[in-house]
Amino acid sequence: MVRGYRTDLAMECLDQKNGELKGVRMNTRTIGGVTHTRIRIEDERAADRLGRRKGEYITVECRDLPNCDARTRELLARMVAMSVRGMLPPEGEVLVVGLGNRNVTADALGTRVVERMLVTRHLQQTIAEELRGKLRGVSAIAPGVLGLTGIETAELCRGLVRHVKPAAVVAIDALAAYESQRICTTVQITDTGIQPGSGVGNHRLGLTEETLGVKVIAVGVPMVVYASTIARDAMTELIRRYGIIKQEESEQLAGQMTEGLMGDMVVTPREIDELVLNIAGLLSDGINQALQPSIDTDTLHSYLHI
Amino acid sequence: MVRGYRTDLAMECLDQKNGELKGVRMNTRTIGGVTHTRIRIEDERAADRLGRRKGEYITVECRDLPNCDARTRELLARMVAMSVRGMLPPEGEVLVVGLGNRNVTADALGTRVVERMLVTRHLQQTIAEELRGKLRGVSAIAPGVLGLTGIETAELCRGLVRHVKPAAVVAIDALAAYESQRICTTVQITDTGIQPGSGVGNHRLGLTEETLGVKVIAVGVPMVVYASTIARDAMTELIRRYGIIKQEESEQLAGQMTEGLMGDMVVTPREIDELVLNIAGLLSDGINQALQPSIDTDTLHSYLHI
Amino acid sequence: MVRGYRTDLAMECLDQKNGELKGVRMNTRTIGGVTHTRIRIEDERAADRLGRRKGEYITVECRDLPNCDARTRELLARMVAMSVRGMLPPEGEVLVVGLGNRNVTADALGTRVVERMLVTRHLQQTIAEELRGKLRGVSAIAPGVLGLTGIETAELCRGLVRHVKPAAVVAIDALAAYESQRICTTVQITDTGIQPGSGVGNHRLGLTEETLGVKVIAVGVPMVVYASTIARDAMTELIRRYGIIKQEESEQLAGQMTEGLMGDMVVTPREIDELVLNIAGLLSDGINQALQPSIDTDTLHSYLHI
Amino acid sequence: MVRGYRTDLAMECLDQKNGELKGVRMNTRTIGGVTHTRIRIEDERAADRLGRRKGEYITVECRDLPNCDARTRELLARMVAMSVRGMLPPEGEVLVVGLGNRNVTADALGTRVVERMLVTRHLQQTIAEELRGKLRGVSAIAPGVLGLTGIETAELCRGLVRHVKPAAVVAIDALAAYESQRICTTVQITDTGIQPGSGVGNHRLGLTEETLGVKVIAVGVPMVVYASTIARDAMTELIRRYGIIKQEESEQLAGQMTEGLMGDMVVTPREIDELVLNIAGLLSDGINQALQPSIDTDTLHSYLHI
Repeated sequence: MVRGYRTDLAMECLDQKNGELKGVRMNTRTIGGVTHTRIRIEDERAADRLGRRKGEYITVECRDLPNCDARTRELLARMVAMSVRGMLPPEGEVLVVGLGNRNVTADALGTRVVERMLVTRHLQQTIAEELRGKLRGVSAIAPGVLGLTGIETAELCRGLVRHVKPAAVVAIDALAAYESQRICTTVQITDTGIQPGSGVGNHRLGLTEETLGVKVIAVGVPMVVYASTIARDAMTELIRRYGIIKQEESEQLAGQMTEGLMGDMVVTPREIDELVLNIAGLLSDGINQALQPSIDTDTLHSYLHI
Repeated sequence: MVRGYRTDLAMECLDQKNGELKGVRMNTRTIGGVTHTRIRIEDERAADRLGRRKGEYITVECRDLPNCDARTRELLARMVAMSVRGMLPPEGEVLVVGLGNRNVTADALGTRVVERMLVTRHLQQTIAEELRGKLRGVSAIAPGVLGLTGIETAELCRGLVRHVKPAAVVAIDALAAYESQRICTTVQITDTGIQPGSGVGNHRLGLTEETLGVKVIAVGVPMVVYASTIARDAMTELIRRYGIIKQEESEQLAGQMTEGLMGDMVVTPREIDELVLNIAGLLSDGINQALQPSIDTDTLHSYLHI
Repeated sequence: MVRGYRTDLAMECLDQKNGELKGVRMNTRTIGGVTHTRIRIEDERAADRLGRRKGEYITVECRDLPNCDARTRELLARMVAMSVRGMLPPEGEVLVVGLGNRNVTADALGTRVVERMLVTRHLQQTIAEELRGKLRGVSAIAPGVLGLTGIETAELCRGLVRHVKPAAVVAIDALAAYESQRICTTVQITDTGIQPGSGVGNHRLGLTEETLGVKVIAVGVPMVVYASTIARDAMTELIRRYGIIKQEESEQLAGQMTEGLMGDMVVTPREIDELVLNIAGLLSDGINQALQPSIDTDTLHSYLHI
Repeated sequence: MVRGYRTDLAMECLDQKNGELKGVRMNTRTIGGVTHTRIRIEDERAADRLGRRKGEYITVECRDLPNCDARTRELLARMVAMSVRGMLPPEGEVLVVGLGNRNVTADALGTRVVERMLVTRHLQQTIAEELRGKLRGVSAIAPGVLGLTGIETAELCRGLVRHVKPAAVVAIDALAAYESQRICTTVQITDTGIQPGSGVGNHRLGLTEETLGVKVIAVGVPMVVYASTIARDAMTELIRRYGIIKQEESEQLAGQMTEGLMGDMVVTPREIDELVLNIAGLLSDGINQALQPSIDTDTLHSYLHI
């Protein structure tokens, strides 16, 4: 059994178990180059074995996501929208929270999405007649990381939730994956919130229904693979082929080799700066659609001056 | 009597009254090219006449501030530090709030200062032995403006204050002045908080002891003059010299001329982008010193990787 | 006669002459809220009286430009494209030069446009079969201002032109206007190049056919009005109404009042940061269309990952 | 023999040869935690075997560079200054060229250094009496990468050099290393210029005395390790320990495993954004000192408004 590989994707946890587990249901379909997978972790034992919380995990994948054509892009946004909408309560305000550090390119995804959200909570009184009743109240914040604020993101969100009283929180975060091909090609949407220790920035506390008191839908895309994962993976491949040393020894060796500076090293595409903006555009399109199903994308964009 | 000129500086309000008013005490001294003025508005009548809240207003001025030498700059930072420290409660945590919109250069001052604050609240447990007891707990946030979050800044701060429970709030904001020479040359520190309608971004609600429940010390620097002020001022000067029309007529005329688009027009130095960073450096040095008097500036800078 | 008002728009120079002048032909039409004006300065005497070089000046205006709907925006881009194309030589490479300082928001327009140009010069060999022959070779550079490079922009461009050997240069620059309503609402396209002393950043030398050796088409949008212009304008209005002092005296007075710091003060809309991006998007759409008439806008955008 | 590992550091090439080679002289000394190594490649045969050009390579190393104290930082800057000055011609103007893409964090080092250069070429006439004769003429440009300009950087520089006629070029670039501990801890200064294919952005042509016609001093710091290097390195370590497969097989296997997307993947520290600014500060301090030995650092900083 391979342990300790760092991933935030439920799908990759399942892959590491060879894709099948009692108490887990999985369902995949592919349309127009886009693969949609729904994983349900149905009992605590399965949750425990996978190291993921009980609940639903949807992944929307497209190998060519960063360079896909306009039609595929719209399809991807629509699939993200449908997935988020399916998890949202039918009514009530929504608070969108962008996690991560805006000053760290690979960790800035949440912040960039929040910058493109159609924020409407403050317009409920002044809104045009034609939109009244059709517009869900949305607020959005990118509170910044612990090292910059001195306040745990989870604590800060709890205070906000008490005050703003949304029906649900949508939290966006940059994830770490196990396989480098996942970077910028896979979107995960889950109703289990953010787990402690996940994300590029390693959140100390989770953002979940238990901690915030309302449903938390987490939307994330892998932006990095840990360098230690690459090194371990290379060794594992060698071991698999030649069977020279025992798995445990290889784990130990890999651990030694990737200590020190490597711990903070991440693997990203060279053009990560552009990719973050690209993916943030896709996610914000999808989430805006999920929150305001009665407004079409062009109108949304004109409101946002995009 | 000249009314309606937009300024956030108590000193300029007083100037417009020819500098003297019952119930107002003023006190000026100049050291090394830096002028320090303390204005106390002592009763409600004076407050009403000036259109400012009762309390203390300190201004630290240096005509050459953006280009001053290193020594003058240190003196300025120390004067800001002393002024803030004099208004702070002797003990207890402090929450620093950066107001304004990070995407609007002239309104981004508060955000830039927050980025340079020494944040310590989360370090209280893990801190080096030698610093324990010497380090005041500081948290800092730049929550973003209503149009981007859907949440009033004052509301958002109230929620945070309830949660973080600081002994005081220090709020930093970009101000509007009446005289263009004030831009980037005058720092105002006041224990009266932020007034509704003030700042470059025009806060709808104030941030004061009444709304937040703890003392609010506001630190601000004028970054703009409203274009309408420039136009009015030019006309007033003409009128003063030639006495052709009555003051009121001139007000009316100026009003007509500066309507429409002009309402949102601001006057700034061309190099405002660089000036904002420059002033943010000065204010953060001053405020960090005020909050951590036992740490010298070089050590502060090394903590902040500046 | 009103002299000395600072403007880079030929149209405003003509307005100051009450709109008519021997040797100048002007032609206006309005379609769908957009006004297209063509001014031809036909002889040196007229050029001299207007203080503009002989040649063609097209302005495309829309009072609501920054907030116009998608259709009007497309119309504006098409009009910019047609105007530029009409001045371009039918064949040969084009070098696009973004003038101004990327670190000064109001002066960064040229830089922002260059960032969105479809650059093709280096692809001529590797290009897809279907595009060969259809794609004009385009190179683009934003060389930075004298204070940052130590090299005059005009000198630097001359060196580049000799090396790259384009058939024409398209130079983009942020302009100063006389009337504040012009800011971000008027595009000027001219075949006379950039004049010395023009632009927000005040180019010391011009970029013209004489200095560069190839045709220079300049595209500009006013981003600022000088604060001194606002002050002078206010006074002039007063004088016009009440006739108190002579025009010359008013000029002198205005000069005195706006000396010193004011000289570097500019009037801009508060949301200038967002407006620069908005206008840069419009200009780059128009110029890209002019340079690559066989590629539609959606395809252009997908090449540029916008 | 291990081939094919990608590095831009002559020192690492030599390490891969076990540190000794005929025709190469190496010389190391350590002062105050900083290691200074001078490598001279003296003949073409040695150059060929190392895959580096003949000439001098100085590396200045400090394991704790990004977090070192103020004194060590000054020592590092001084060592960079001395190394650059030793390679500069004693007189004549210098053109500083920042290579790389400002929009790609890890590749933006050259651009960031250029932003902090004391540019003086344009001041030679207007300069204060006391500085005349003491100030070397310096110009600086960050021309942008081929994909954004359509012009090869080397071509562009050749055009500039012909026009500006400097006595030497100093080129700054972000490098790739073989060992991840080198990232942000090693500065390489060489009089051999920039080699084709080197740097994070993979320059197609080199910038050398042959291509530019004047001496080219290259200053670089590793900002990335290629992900494929990490994978190969892990496998090599395993092979070294267990001797299971032949080196060549391991190379082949590594090649297979790291194909595809991985080719563009780079390993960087998570906080690369901050590190780039930090290292750019160090390099610009060092290079400014080398170019203007008669001005002390504080005065330099005040000129640069840092």
